[in-house]
Amino acid sequence: MATIKDVAKHAGVSVATVSRVINKSPKASQTAVDAVTQAMRTLGYRPNANARALVNQSTNTLGVLAGDVSDPFFGAMVKAIDGIARQEKKHLLIGNGYHNADQEREAIELLLNSRCESYVIHSKALSNDELIEFAREVPSMVLINRFIPEIANRCIALDNERGTYLATKFLISHGHQHIGYVSSNHDIEDREQRRNGYEKALEEHGLPFRESYIEFGSPDGEGGESAAINLLAKNLPITAIVTYNDFMAAGVLSVLDENGIRTPEEMSLVGFDDGALARYLHPKLTTVRYPIQIMAEQAAILSMKLAKNEAISPDSRLYAPTLVRRLSVRALSD
Amino acid sequence: MATIKDVAKHAGVSVATVSRVINKSPKASQTAVDAVTQAMRTLGYRPNANARALVNQSTNTLGVLAGDVSDPFFGAMVKAIDGIARQEKKHLLIGNGYHNADQEREAIELLLNSRCESYVIHSKALSNDELIEFAREVPSMVLINRFIPEIANRCIALDNERGTYLATKFLISHGHQHIGYVSSNHDIEDREQRRNGYEKALEEHGLPFRESYIEFGSPDGEGGESAAINLLAKNLPITAIVTYNDFMAAGVLSVLDENGIRTPEEMSLVGFDDGALARYLHPKLTTVRYPIQIMAEQAAILSMKLAKNEAISPDSRLYAPTLVRRLSVRALSD
Repeated sequence: MATIKDVAKHAGVSVATVSRVINKSPKASQTAVDAVTQAMRTLGYRPNANARALVNQSTNTLGVLAGDVSDPFFGAMVKAIDGIARQEKKHLLIGNGYHNADQEREAIELLLNSRCESYVIHSKALSNDELIEFAREVPSMVLINRFIPEIANRCIALDNERGTYLATKFLISHGHQHIGYVSSNHDIEDREQRRNGYEKALEEHGLPFRESYIEFGSPDGEGGESAAINLLAKNLPITAIVTYNDFMAAGVLSVLDENGIRTPEEMSLVGFDDGALARYLHPKLTTVRYPIQIMAEQAAILSMKLAKNEAISPDSRLYAPTLVRRLSVRALSD
Repeated sequence: MATIKDVAKHAGVSVATVSRVINKSPKASQTAVDAVTQAMRTLGYRPNANARALVNQSTNTLGVLAGDVSDPFFGAMVKAIDGIARQEKKHLLIGNGYHNADQEREAIELLLNSRCESYVIHSKALSNDELIEFAREVPSMVLINRFIPEIANRCIALDNERGTYLATKFLISHGHQHIGYVSSNHDIEDREQRRNGYEKALEEHGLPFRESYIEFGSPDGEGGESAAINLLAKNLPITAIVTYNDFMAAGVLSVLDENGIRTPEEMSLVGFDDGALARYLHPKLTTVRYPIQIMAEQAAILSMKLAKNEAISPDSRLYAPTLVRRLSVRALSD
């Protein structure tokens, strides 16, 4: 492969001039720009982004830590960040943390070592203290789907508790008193918060909270299936189920269907996320909308502002979920 | 932030020694390794990956061009590549090309400028000639879901035509003679190939091919809905529909359901992909399995072998789809 020296020789200029042209320095003359561009084309020379980054102290990249991009939730998050980054001619460097502390730490270290300009980090397994330390070290780092009071203005978070609270309250207002909850078994704060919302709604309406009404599974279709099987096995008088997310709801629906239990006639169901799946389930799923697109866009904008040392508002960045009514809930008349 | 000079001063060694330690040179003594490691920890110094890459001529990254990571198909592809890369302690740099020539080219250039060690490229919009040129320039580049005869041993492709051929033949063997086809409107070779498979199966069984039996839409749920609406509007005697992918099938199902047309009793349906969605549709979708996971893993392995100048077999890397029978097709008895 051609080197910068080859280009300089071919163009009849110094290496420093080639470097100036590559880095679009205003000191490069038009003659130099033309000669160097021509030489680069002839020799098939590619300016090395690593070398350029050292000169510019900038890599034009936005680093993203996702949980797992094969989960549609993170797919939507990454796409929204990419949309904003592209407008600013930045590209993404993406790592997966898989909700595991070691893997999250390693992925963040790799992004930091690559000297991204700014960072949007979805970390669930690292402690508040560790993330606060990262954030203090890296002024352009923003956290998404995480709230840490000490760095509140760098956190874009969702009021998870409110989501399941809304879902449960909606079922109660439709006459349901025995409401099961299908939870994720991932040990992350969302699990706790969503369970709290379910419990809070029951409490507010004078309904008893029973541990036996909760079952756990991985936060996907298979997890929803196994949790539903366990819930049915206990032979409880439940008439409705709140789920941790739409994929778990899809698994629950599948088990109900196989067991001849009709939704919503015999069992009402509410999901969480409102991604691409909810509208295509049968019946179309009533669910809680997670505004991940706008949140991810805001996170990207915020991180790029921080990278430019622009002032950011101290406003709260806690987003609110909303209920989307479709066809999986019926009113109980008893 | 601390510099390499600060580390050298703190450790009482030269900058060259620090560099040797960072780059794990065998020439560094254990005493030097200990002193430098201690100094780096004390000062919070992070070796700069850009500087390191210049020294090592390696970035430890595998560059991936996806169509759009928010599409679950690409999510699955990226996850499979990541699984292989992690085993080799590589991380991913991911770009989206959105099936647009300019965006694909730009994303590939960004990956090349970042000097990834190896590349897995999903390009649909660039010409064979342009991709051949890229592949010749970059020996560790592998193409996925694309077949170019001149660089066949660097292409991991699917026999798309065989997929829709299998789907259509399956319907014909169940007595269907009037079979519609819901196609993607993206102008990529997959569209042509899948349409050819549908046409070939009809032809082989002496059934007429009719342009009016084909409708188009974006390759997602909404596209499936609009294509289904147009197909129904034409009042054709069709009893079955082959679709371009599972998301389009989900959209078709939704429109059929809203119009009181039962699947499979009144309309049989076959999808394409067998991603996370197919099993959760109602009825569970009979579909064509796209073995993207094994293909993506093979692409990652192949690209890393090429990066190490290892010999690769000249074998064909054309993968075959298979039919997955579920509940969305019924036998016609007439």
